[in-house]
Amino acid sequence: LKIARLITLTTDFGMSDSYVAQMKGVVLSINPGVTIIDVTHSIAPQDIRRAASIMADIAGAFPEGTIHVAVVDPGVGTARGLLAVEAAGQRFVAPDNGLLGLLLGRNPAGRIHRLSEDRFWRKPVSATFHGRDILAPVAAQWSLGIDIARFGPPVDPDQVFTLARPVVRRVGNSLIGEIELIDAFGNCISNISRAELPTEADVSRIRIEIAGRCIAGISVCYADRPPGAELALFGSSGLLEVALNQGDAAQSLGIEPGTEIRLLFS
Amino acid sequence: LKIARLITLTTDFGMSDSYVAQMKGVVLSINPGVTIIDVTHSIAPQDIRRAASIMADIAGAFPEGTIHVAVVDPGVGTARGLLAVEAAGQRFVAPDNGLLGLLLGRNPAGRIHRLSEDRFWRKPVSATFHGRDILAPVAAQWSLGIDIARFGPPVDPDQVFTLARPVVRRVGNSLIGEIELIDAFGNCISNISRAELPTEADVSRIRIEIAGRCIAGISVCYADRPPGAELALFGSSGLLEVALNQGDAAQSLGIEPGTEIRLLFS
Amino acid sequence: LKIARLITLTTDFGMSDSYVAQMKGVVLSINPGVTIIDVTHSIAPQDIRRAASIMADIAGAFPEGTIHVAVVDPGVGTARGLLAVEAAGQRFVAPDNGLLGLLLGRNPAGRIHRLSEDRFWRKPVSATFHGRDILAPVAAQWSLGIDIARFGPPVDPDQVFTLARPVVRRVGNSLIGEIELIDAFGNCISNISRAELPTEADVSRIRIEIAGRCIAGISVCYADRPPGAELALFGSSGLLEVALNQGDAAQSLGIEPGTEIRLLFS
Repeated sequence: LKIARLITLTTDFGMSDSYVAQMKGVVLSINPGVTIIDVTHSIAPQDIRRAASIMADIAGAFPEGTIHVAVVDPGVGTARGLLAVEAAGQRFVAPDNGLLGLLLGRNPAGRIHRLSEDRFWRKPVSATFHGRDILAPVAAQWSLGIDIARFGPPVDPDQVFTLARPVVRRVGNSLIGEIELIDAFGNCISNISRAELPTEADVSRIRIEIAGRCIAGISVCYADRPPGAELALFGSSGLLEVALNQGDAAQSLGIEPGTEIRLLFS
Repeated sequence: LKIARLITLTTDFGMSDSYVAQMKGVVLSINPGVTIIDVTHSIAPQDIRRAASIMADIAGAFPEGTIHVAVVDPGVGTARGLLAVEAAGQRFVAPDNGLLGLLLGRNPAGRIHRLSEDRFWRKPVSATFHGRDILAPVAAQWSLGIDIARFGPPVDPDQVFTLARPVVRRVGNSLIGEIELIDAFGNCISNISRAELPTEADVSRIRIEIAGRCIAGISVCYADRPPGAELALFGSSGLLEVALNQGDAAQSLGIEPGTEIRLLFS
Repeated sequence: LKIARLITLTTDFGMSDSYVAQMKGVVLSINPGVTIIDVTHSIAPQDIRRAASIMADIAGAFPEGTIHVAVVDPGVGTARGLLAVEAAGQRFVAPDNGLLGLLLGRNPAGRIHRLSEDRFWRKPVSATFHGRDILAPVAAQWSLGIDIARFGPPVDPDQVFTLARPVVRRVGNSLIGEIELIDAFGNCISNISRAELPTEADVSRIRIEIAGRCIAGISVCYADRPPGAELALFGSSGLLEVALNQGDAAQSLGIEPGTEIRLLFS
């Protein structure tokens, strides 16, 4: 965990302004050799929960030590802290507003430091764009191998701001969770992971109830059902999702983030 | 055709989820030195024909040996094959569902192999995201110079899945084709290439009939006509297109993919 | 100012077609070592003023010598010139249609040359896509250290096409400007920079009038006011903007580019 070759960016900036490019210019001014990957800049304005979910999910696909920068920051310019965090073999730089809460809920934290040493920042620091003026330059210096401890004092993991996450409840012979995320295909991804199923469960006999519908059995892939048919499967991040083969499940079935999903074991 | 410095990505994933970034993370974990270029992630969900058209068009602008990865894959998880293909001095990795059909219709095929050797894949292989778990790692290994034959058995070009393409018909002194693609400006690009015109044709005297309109003569550039005026010209990929100078022809004239276009030679 | 490691792209091409990727392929065919940064491809079709504003703003965030390519070009194929320009420690390649007007209005020009030497261009040159066939290859050659003077004859800065820019007027004890730009958050950015305020002005006592509203005092950051409240502050590029904390000011207050904004000093 010294030099990083990759820095990723996740923001709510959109791509119609030059904000994202300005962050990249600042990073590459400091470390011209690093590769920058856009995760997404289409987070809905100030949707911290959505960005937190992405931070928790992406670690597995990136090389060890990759630095992930997340900027969804309605408190920019106030006293909310900015953090550098090690977890899941990756590194993260983000405001302390819940963005790293899901990640730290699922993974043991490594070192965590608060960004306070302004000699690593871009000057002058604007009051409205800490992504460009603090987070980007710190990420770039970190990618050059500067030790995390130099950016500011250590922070106890228990002090990091978290978001309440809907829990999965077990009621009789059923599991009750909720939809956390609709992806761009309209697939409805729940908070129920494969590990939460009883080990003896026969997936072909599970009934899934959602939005007044009942789906029989858990499929392996979308094309297990005819085009337009609804189905449930464990998706690429290991969470149960409700989908339509070649269709938009969220729109067709009227599902939104927060919709309850219920699994019944026979 | 050994080492590749560039890998391009064309998908229907959109950029609001982390799917595209996960593919990039996998590629760069295997080959940190390769440069990844986004062609587009805005293919309409499951619009194989649109992606096939892009695969057929982009070869000319990229260095020899560039690897183009296309993922529009409604059959993900089923028995549909995945292919590595050499053609037009470029390399392609995609599902065998028509995505490479137009390309192979226009260019002689080099070697074609089916991806079956799972030691080149990411483990565990999910049932819903072969782009990340099979296509991305194979493209990355290929870019390092691994021979195509190691990815799986050879495939006969005649066995590759193709899409029926609308043909241009010659009727009397006219050519009849159709609009294949509307671009983001609303320019309406047909399947009629410059080579299909009779060599003696006087382009200033050709009449173009489309959507109940008649356009006299083929222009050289959009600004040949006044702002708002309709015109026809051969665009940057050599195909006849109908456009409005500084306007949106598709919207103004009611043109869609499939709309007939007719050229009359006097 | 010889070798450039970075080239940025700003266009009105969108990302649903392969046009942007074709430009990148051409650049990297000539200079495989350069890094390409997307500023935005979401300029509204032919909105030269918006792209000109970005060109004037981005210089500060990029390393010296970065080459910025801008393509918003309704006159493509006509006799309008194409320019290579040095200014603000950066380099620019763009049509001579006003795209570089704001930049040159704010910064002293270095050398300016018209692109006429077609041996630096991609052949054949299409009539509709000079971004790919002229601007991209010239930018790539320039990044390799080719001297600007080899691309064509020098141009006098006074001959570069500019756009009339709304001026800030001082009337009695007030300043009158206008909104130039709405960003993706709905923040309304005016043409009034901090430098235009009287040095003795007490920012907490300034009144801002816009769209029938009156805002008291200039804030430091968005969160200075409660969620949903309107406020004014100097944003990350030093210009006065009107915003809503965690909201969309343009939509809520009915502000558009051109809306008058008035500052009253007490």
